[in-house]
Amino acid sequence: MITLKDALELVLKEVKLMPIERIDLFSCYGRILAEDIISDIDIPGFDRAAMDGYAINSISTLSASPQNPVILKVIEEIPAGKKPNKKILINECSMIMTGSLMPEGSDSVVMLEEVETLSNSEGKFIKIKREIKKGENVSYKGEDIKKGELILSSGIKLEPNHIGILGSLGYKNVIVRKRPKVGILITGNEIISPGKKLTFGKIYDANSYSLYSLIIKYGGIPVYLGISKDDYTSLETKIKQGLKNDILLISGGVSEGNYDLVIDVLKKLKVKQIFWKVAVKPGKPVFFGKKGKTLIFGLPGYPVSAFLNFQNLVRPCILKMLGQEKIEKKKIKAILTQTIENKGDRLSFIRVKLKEENGKIFADVFPKQKSGILKSIVFCDGVVNLPVGSEIRQGEEVEVELLF
Amino acid sequence: MITLKDALELVLKEVKLMPIERIDLFSCYGRILAEDIISDIDIPGFDRAAMDGYAINSISTLSASPQNPVILKVIEEIPAGKKPNKKILINECSMIMTGSLMPEGSDSVVMLEEVETLSNSEGKFIKIKREIKKGENVSYKGEDIKKGELILSSGIKLEPNHIGILGSLGYKNVIVRKRPKVGILITGNEIISPGKKLTFGKIYDANSYSLYSLIIKYGGIPVYLGISKDDYTSLETKIKQGLKNDILLISGGVSEGNYDLVIDVLKKLKVKQIFWKVAVKPGKPVFFGKKGKTLIFGLPGYPVSAFLNFQNLVRPCILKMLGQEKIEKKKIKAILTQTIENKGDRLSFIRVKLKEENGKIFADVFPKQKSGILKSIVFCDGVVNLPVGSEIRQGEEVEVELLF
Repeated sequence: MITLKDALELVLKEVKLMPIERIDLFSCYGRILAEDIISDIDIPGFDRAAMDGYAINSISTLSASPQNPVILKVIEEIPAGKKPNKKILINECSMIMTGSLMPEGSDSVVMLEEVETLSNSEGKFIKIKREIKKGENVSYKGEDIKKGELILSSGIKLEPNHIGILGSLGYKNVIVRKRPKVGILITGNEIISPGKKLTFGKIYDANSYSLYSLIIKYGGIPVYLGISKDDYTSLETKIKQGLKNDILLISGGVSEGNYDLVIDVLKKLKVKQIFWKVAVKPGKPVFFGKKGKTLIFGLPGYPVSAFLNFQNLVRPCILKMLGQEKIEKKKIKAILTQTIENKGDRLSFIRVKLKEENGKIFADVFPKQKSGILKSIVFCDGVVNLPVGSEIRQGEEVEVELLF
Repeated sequence: MITLKDALELVLKEVKLMPIERIDLFSCYGRILAEDIISDIDIPGFDRAAMDGYAINSISTLSASPQNPVILKVIEEIPAGKKPNKKILINECSMIMTGSLMPEGSDSVVMLEEVETLSNSEGKFIKIKREIKKGENVSYKGEDIKKGELILSSGIKLEPNHIGILGSLGYKNVIVRKRPKVGILITGNEIISPGKKLTFGKIYDANSYSLYSLIIKYGGIPVYLGISKDDYTSLETKIKQGLKNDILLISGGVSEGNYDLVIDVLKKLKVKQIFWKVAVKPGKPVFFGKKGKTLIFGLPGYPVSAFLNFQNLVRPCILKMLGQEKIEKKKIKAILTQTIENKGDRLSFIRVKLKEENGKIFADVFPKQKSGILKSIVFCDGVVNLPVGSEIRQGEEVEVELLF
């Protein structure tokens, strides 16, 4: 038995970064960026109007007031995306749309809503009733982003705001890490697929579905291999198939019972064992090995154990393959509402439910903590890691690792 | 101008729930459940071994100790998924795997690791060196989930733990809401697609990409309509196409400039205006209307305004269509590191960056808050909603709405 910390280190040591690929900006949501994004351009690329209104030289409005308004002649209407043709002189202005290039001679924009328009045989005019400050409603070239500035760093997970800025910078494609293929093999004579009739002594398969969606959630491509009976030939065939992936997850058949053949088959197939059994509760009989470029996790069949082992070992493995910058789980501080202690010899994962009262966050210990208790990961929000020999008393602050 | 609160109410009032569909458990990650899940079965479905070991009658071990071990005869080996054939009498045991049905006459399991095995011409035996408690390492029928128990409620977003438990309960399919189709139309003569050459006065399109990924993130299906020039015919053609969706988002062309034709075209196409202009900064000139079953949002062209309006109005609209239980944004409390005040006449969205120091969370105000500043939504974590006429002083606690 090794500690979880050592196990995680051994897993991460085996990880190779996935190769990169260039994909379209429309397809990159949630992918992990594999290049630094340095701006090639200034944004704005030119001095532009920040509001719909009239571009003026602010000097024209000196000492303007409601009693003493100034009147400026409209010499041009500049459509968005078009260059202005005329230079603004004192007492002149051009109508301008948000985002348009400021005409020569202008230094500020007075908003549409602030002016009165007049027209006579000599043309259109506007009346302004206050002094306009130089630079008012103008966005200057490079004010947002300067050419050469680092905007996004390799390793971030692309969210909609990142993807928007990539568009603004002129990126049509972006370089990301390829998603690792993760095989899922479920083993056990007692496991049957949902939808079938439940006969006595059998249980429905949970791990196919939770592992499949966990893999998607953390950026892998699930490759489903089905359910294998506990016999040598079936296992060997399926495991051989599974070894074609970047990662292979095998659920069940890794503890010490006579019918736990998975370890034997892995050995026969020359999978190198890196560790077997981690000092955690639940989830002790977890296996980790490697063959060629494939990393193999043998997870206990119990859904709670498989789930927690995935979160603690497989998830960081996938994230590191993808080059993701952050691999720690989200944590939140909470006040424990009940004393917990660990008298055993393994790090214990205490599942808790969070609640907010009077602006404080409390963690209620889920009453049933056995590894067979599925509800403990469905009705809870997170896990408190309780080290061997430790006690955390009611009212003390704990760190809760969120389930997601 | 109406308040954001009123605007959101008007939007939500128009929302109709999407129809339901039945989908495979492998495809349901991230979807919104549209049925209550009540268990049809007990889990476990029978009293079962919680560990690999030997099923015994605990009475056999009364007063057992290292000095006085008891010896039990192994009468059967029960494979996982198979029924036991033999009844356990005092001083007998059967080898049993985790998850297997407890044989008649047994009430506890002694773990493999705890026993010594012996064999002679009369068979196999085990030596136990302590008293085993009744019920030790046994999971009782219905201990986790009882038949008739409500496990998941309609309206939750399906995460891997939910999907696992659905498998355990025997669900092969699950009923969810169909995803709404959301059209995206970008308008503006000045907008060009990334990848093209940036000519003077033009800017690259950000909103196509941020809106596309925001729609995916919150459960819609994006339907991309491209970029339209600011002319009546192009706009009319594209908008007509867009009105075939459940929601249509139009970016740009909704303020009061002469070239903002979108509102005119919408009126001609008999889109009923529900509101136009919301007292927020940035993002005021937002339009909301409806035609038949289609809800139409006209969003300002500025990427920051479009993004924040999406989060405040479109996102809740999509989530309510999906029947999602929680539509509020995630919030976090933080200590403001700089005084902010709102002297204007609109609710102000102050973008902040969070940092943790000595276990406390602080919010730094981003130095540039103009709506044109893309970096303010890329380099920040969230938004403080600052009401009209209010001031929040440095050191005070604020609620930060997270960007995601």
